[in-house]
Amino acid sequence: MLISYDFSSALKEKIGPAGIPAKSKKALMPRLKRIREGLKQAHAKGSVGFLSIPERRSDLRRVVALAKEISRKFKTLIVIGIGGSDLGARAFVRALDEGKGMDVRFIGANTDPEEIAALLDSVDLKKCALNVISKSGDTIEPMSTFLLLRERLIAKVGKRAHAEHIIATTDWNRGTLRTIADREGYRTLPVPNDIGGRFSALTPVGLFPAACAGIDVAGLVRGAGKIRDRFLSIPMSGNNVLNYCAVHYLGYSKRGQRIHVLMPYAARLDLLGDWYRQLWAESLGKRLSRRGREVNHGPTPVAALGATDQHSQIQLYNEGPDDKIVTFIEVERPRSDFIVPKPYPDLEGIAYLGGQRFSAILDAERRATAQALAANGRPSGTIAIPSISPETVGGLMMFFMLATAAMGELLDVNAYDQPGVEAGKKAMDKMLGRKSR
Amino acid sequence: MLISYDFSSALKEKIGPAGIPAKSKKALMPRLKRIREGLKQAHAKGSVGFLSIPERRSDLRRVVALAKEISRKFKTLIVIGIGGSDLGARAFVRALDEGKGMDVRFIGANTDPEEIAALLDSVDLKKCALNVISKSGDTIEPMSTFLLLRERLIAKVGKRAHAEHIIATTDWNRGTLRTIADREGYRTLPVPNDIGGRFSALTPVGLFPAACAGIDVAGLVRGAGKIRDRFLSIPMSGNNVLNYCAVHYLGYSKRGQRIHVLMPYAARLDLLGDWYRQLWAESLGKRLSRRGREVNHGPTPVAALGATDQHSQIQLYNEGPDDKIVTFIEVERPRSDFIVPKPYPDLEGIAYLGGQRFSAILDAERRATAQALAANGRPSGTIAIPSISPETVGGLMMFFMLATAAMGELLDVNAYDQPGVEAGKKAMDKMLGRKSR
Repeated sequence: MLISYDFSSALKEKIGPAGIPAKSKKALMPRLKRIREGLKQAHAKGSVGFLSIPERRSDLRRVVALAKEISRKFKTLIVIGIGGSDLGARAFVRALDEGKGMDVRFIGANTDPEEIAALLDSVDLKKCALNVISKSGDTIEPMSTFLLLRERLIAKVGKRAHAEHIIATTDWNRGTLRTIADREGYRTLPVPNDIGGRFSALTPVGLFPAACAGIDVAGLVRGAGKIRDRFLSIPMSGNNVLNYCAVHYLGYSKRGQRIHVLMPYAARLDLLGDWYRQLWAESLGKRLSRRGREVNHGPTPVAALGATDQHSQIQLYNEGPDDKIVTFIEVERPRSDFIVPKPYPDLEGIAYLGGQRFSAILDAERRATAQALAANGRPSGTIAIPSISPETVGGLMMFFMLATAAMGELLDVNAYDQPGVEAGKKAMDKMLGRKSR
Repeated sequence: MLISYDFSSALKEKIGPAGIPAKSKKALMPRLKRIREGLKQAHAKGSVGFLSIPERRSDLRRVVALAKEISRKFKTLIVIGIGGSDLGARAFVRALDEGKGMDVRFIGANTDPEEIAALLDSVDLKKCALNVISKSGDTIEPMSTFLLLRERLIAKVGKRAHAEHIIATTDWNRGTLRTIADREGYRTLPVPNDIGGRFSALTPVGLFPAACAGIDVAGLVRGAGKIRDRFLSIPMSGNNVLNYCAVHYLGYSKRGQRIHVLMPYAARLDLLGDWYRQLWAESLGKRLSRRGREVNHGPTPVAALGATDQHSQIQLYNEGPDDKIVTFIEVERPRSDFIVPKPYPDLEGIAYLGGQRFSAILDAERRATAQALAANGRPSGTIAIPSISPETVGGLMMFFMLATAAMGELLDVNAYDQPGVEAGKKAMDKMLGRKSR
């Protein structure tokens, strides 16, 4: 199976009162069934954009062709995006880059001048392509950074040649970045109209940088398709996405478990945690319910990493307040492995490690942590994937996007908007002297 | 001033009911005064180790001398530590590395074989020194990783020469790594007996990798000393550390604000957030009070980054549950700056950005975010430093260590132990076949 989910350590029957009673989960099933039906219909009608990602083949072809061309011409790709415009691609490159493609860098568009200075010191712009990503072209951070890097690029290669270096991922028809791209003759890729930033990793937004890094982007999309199809078709009790939602919804709403930790035991999945953090927080953190009632909903996602965070966060998770649900990600077969040597058989403190596989140690760390949490009555679950591959990473993203959509329905909030960032934007506009929007 | 703290946006008088009433803060002052007196006495008696870091000059000299020697001989330093044994050094290198010293790499000792394979592919061990850090020498992750890298190193340079490449930071008198170092003739640095891992960044544990990276480690310690002296000497009302504690303690205990977000507006301080995350979580997350009462205390620290996380977490912080306190870090003068060009004066969506300094944009982002939080009745505070320098980074660490110590007293928990990781360790031992401890 591409992705499995074991939630037995979240059940009251196993861990005691902090767990979910099996009967509560059963009682939730009719609602979950209706939610899945709703998503099925939304998919059929095309009203929830990310559900049709696996069918958007022309976008995928466009991405692959352009990445091929750019990879031939340039050594480095600098991605200029923020939030939903770079977290997905970062996660892909971290998990899957095997050095087969371009060197892909993320400036993060944080508008931090020290960070920009460090980037400019470390690259030769003549050998760089710039991928600026903004649907409207009005986003302050990436556009400021783009305008600066564009000017530096022109200083190096001249006004005429600079257009060859730039790929704008933006709205297909309108907006500031579209206007600039048309005026300057930049190549462009579309940000789909019906898919919001945090759901856009598997569109040209995230796929183009991944393809430039030499990652099999068709595999990413194929994995996402498999998980979506499985979600829409298999029986309720074995539906991993809905089980994940049930555990998190019941913990959140009945037990005050408002902190949702994602803890892969695989260093290369750490940035998937950053991507998930936006998806879960921005989709579910809402003041108003769909019916306009003030609910102030929103679990706080936390990205952790095993085994590292055993030496940082596990003390708190084991002994602190019962306000968390931890989800481990297990990678069954790493792409490399090593055996611990045994040069000191007489030293009791380490002799037993000799001859053990690193993969077995990491696996034991995860199982021991799950056991300790259960012994302390703290709920956890484990998502397992066979290995880190384009299919599994794309599949994990679809898994979490589906879970987010369903969780939005359970909490009765709109998972697709972000009204709570408007106040800050307005304050910014005023400070920086923008007259109107 | 090296570090200031503005908590006006955490007060009820400014933001409404989610804020702290000024009179609650005032009422807490006598307790805080007693706590400071207690720490003063502990410093005089030498019973709380980290308080005397500024006086440990012989350790500092040893670090500087050894780093000088190692830097002459090798190109890369591979740091093999986990948790308190590498988070501090990572934060230093990220914030302060200006390319003047060795290339310092952190393997993270995560026992992830894919990560180890990536490291081995990217370095020439002949040009590497290894700094293995473990007080006991029994810590599974760094010791497994060390034994593997040591074997690989011997294969490259031979048994006799390999010892020159290795620096063990460990207990000065006893333990497995001490035994190995003595047997093999490795150079060593001391892990102080009276300073626990998460308080050890400013000891040889964190200072040696920093010194190898060419960072002014005396400056780090000097900054820490300034902040400690200020804490111990200045009046209560202007005591930033105690004000920080008051805001977080009152929010935590009276208002259920159990999530404590640290959000620097400076990319190079992001790993300081990871260091803080261990310090706050592992010190304060405790099942039992000092008197043995079951309290299950513990705020959950979250490391965020501005402006990036405005596009990820701020929707949740503004509209989600009132369960967070956000602390911004403002850097008043960045080490570099740029101005946004204005090539498109006719495009209203970006024209106003032309001519603005990046530092001013980043500053406006922070202020706008703080304003929006306040308008939504969500508490925040701002720590400001003049610039990112060894003094301010060392000062920030001392600031947070003092705050942690004082917060432990307020919550009546032992901030210096970690009993909640023992269960997992025992389960590990069993799985991996270790007989006894």
